[in-house]
Amino acid sequence: MSSFQAILSAFESYCKNQLSSRSPEELYAPVEYIMQLGGKRIRPILAILGRLIFDEEAEPALPVALAVELFHNFSLIHDDIMDEAPLRRGQPTVHLKYGINSGILSGDVMLIQAYDYLLEGKVGERGIQLFNRVAREVCEGQQYDMNFESRTDVQIPEYLQMIELKTAALLGGSLALGAMTTDAPSDAIQLLEAFGRNIGIAFQLQDDILDTFGDPSLVGKKVGGDIAQNKKTYLILKALELAAPAEKARLLQLMGGQPIPEQEKIAQVSAILRDLNIQQLAEQEKNVYQNRAFENLYALNGNKSAIEALSNLAQQLMQRQY
Amino acid sequence: MSSFQAILSAFESYCKNQLSSRSPEELYAPVEYIMQLGGKRIRPILAILGRLIFDEEAEPALPVALAVELFHNFSLIHDDIMDEAPLRRGQPTVHLKYGINSGILSGDVMLIQAYDYLLEGKVGERGIQLFNRVAREVCEGQQYDMNFESRTDVQIPEYLQMIELKTAALLGGSLALGAMTTDAPSDAIQLLEAFGRNIGIAFQLQDDILDTFGDPSLVGKKVGGDIAQNKKTYLILKALELAAPAEKARLLQLMGGQPIPEQEKIAQVSAILRDLNIQQLAEQEKNVYQNRAFENLYALNGNKSAIEALSNLAQQLMQRQY
Repeated sequence: MSSFQAILSAFESYCKNQLSSRSPEELYAPVEYIMQLGGKRIRPILAILGRLIFDEEAEPALPVALAVELFHNFSLIHDDIMDEAPLRRGQPTVHLKYGINSGILSGDVMLIQAYDYLLEGKVGERGIQLFNRVAREVCEGQQYDMNFESRTDVQIPEYLQMIELKTAALLGGSLALGAMTTDAPSDAIQLLEAFGRNIGIAFQLQDDILDTFGDPSLVGKKVGGDIAQNKKTYLILKALELAAPAEKARLLQLMGGQPIPEQEKIAQVSAILRDLNIQQLAEQEKNVYQNRAFENLYALNGNKSAIEALSNLAQQLMQRQY
Repeated sequence: MSSFQAILSAFESYCKNQLSSRSPEELYAPVEYIMQLGGKRIRPILAILGRLIFDEEAEPALPVALAVELFHNFSLIHDDIMDEAPLRRGQPTVHLKYGINSGILSGDVMLIQAYDYLLEGKVGERGIQLFNRVAREVCEGQQYDMNFESRTDVQIPEYLQMIELKTAALLGGSLALGAMTTDAPSDAIQLLEAFGRNIGIAFQLQDDILDTFGDPSLVGKKVGGDIAQNKKTYLILKALELAAPAEKARLLQLMGGQPIPEQEKIAQVSAILRDLNIQQLAEQEKNVYQNRAFENLYALNGNKSAIEALSNLAQQLMQRQY
């Protein structure tokens, strides 16, 4: 953990230095606000570890680390507007604090700034191309996610594609971009990106599992939140796929906003999921991606201790210990 | 004009080919919608002329032409959301047709696509850097414009800076990016960008003048629209600067939303502007920028007929004949 702490504090000071006050204040204050709300800084850490696998010196990865964090926070601001979310990391969302117009425009400028830091990070045209692809994928994932809200026939492969685009693509991209600040060969960068994608999908599936079946004291948030919000997670989609007609109808009724006290709804949906053995099936699916991820990682030639650090981080993330 | 027609039709087919149907449709349909609404395509034409000054072949400028048009339309979509505008080019705005969320997300993806086409256009890191600077300036200009709505003490230099950022920067940037697809020297590219900025400021000042003092049959839109909407144009700001206290108070009252029939308001404000000789003063200011622009242009070494074509286009734009 101490090396993560060192990486993290190097990133935090770089971030603070770079994003100091610019004009007009109304445009840049929301950028500083969301960037200092913190979060786990997973993407910057991945970018830095992506570099450390191929080069000892962490510092040249800082601009790219900032680029992916700016992009991530741009997408959070715009997603929070679309989802009408009031809170982000326990604090008011940007649009709630500064207004929707500021949220739109400050998000836009963060996306542009991300490209500034990509150039600063000297990832070359190949790096910008990769970033563009990932950025488009994140937008496409967000659109699929919104589409799914009003659909009752979402299939598992579509769901897996959506979480790959919306969440996993940027994790893979962060690692690859960090590696692209070195002279790492293309095939190694591809393996690293594949690791990030696969672990990202596994992480999202784990998230789905823990939200319903996790130990509240470990998960750190209310269990059953996804069910309460009628989210079509992997668990629900798998249950809809396997349930007998009557059970499926009951599930759709419960998840379709039938007025029922929240705790009772969570209990009834969870019971159906347990009946169908959904937790185990989801764990199996998660393990498929997790195993693929570690195959990718251990096929890499690079600095052993950086690979080990990345492996540890991934395991801690999966267990919610980071 | 026939050469513009050729340039324009080459651009239109390229644009149509490139932006054909992609998934998810909900994300990309708004992109196709706004891009086929047309408009004058000034920025793509500038990008192509920027190239033709230094190279005979127009075609390699098409990706960059598409990049600046995508960026321009991205900014229109987001601005229309912020301004709650119902119409764009006589048709429903994107957010009115597809919803605000689609407007935000489709705009985002257009900004990312713009970078794809910059890479495709091979403008190099220098080109992406220039594009980033211009893109940030456009966001900053939009923020200043929104700030000015609630201020009564906006000064002329601030206004000139705002229109340079919001409108003129991208015109200069389009020319420069077109030139950057050739081996044009840096100082020539700088002159071309300066031409675009200066002519852009002159064009916006001309727009302010024509909106109040233009011949309705030539202007093609209702005269007095800016006054009706309480817009703080150059004319109003100059009048506030020069008016005696009583006149200034009256102007602020009229432009501050005092309930008064629209035609009467336009007539009274116009009378104050005439009293203060504002049209002539605005023409003088416009001429300063127009003269600077043509000094920049004629200092350029390049293909004479392309420079002439650019000069003609600028003059036609100033006279609303294009």
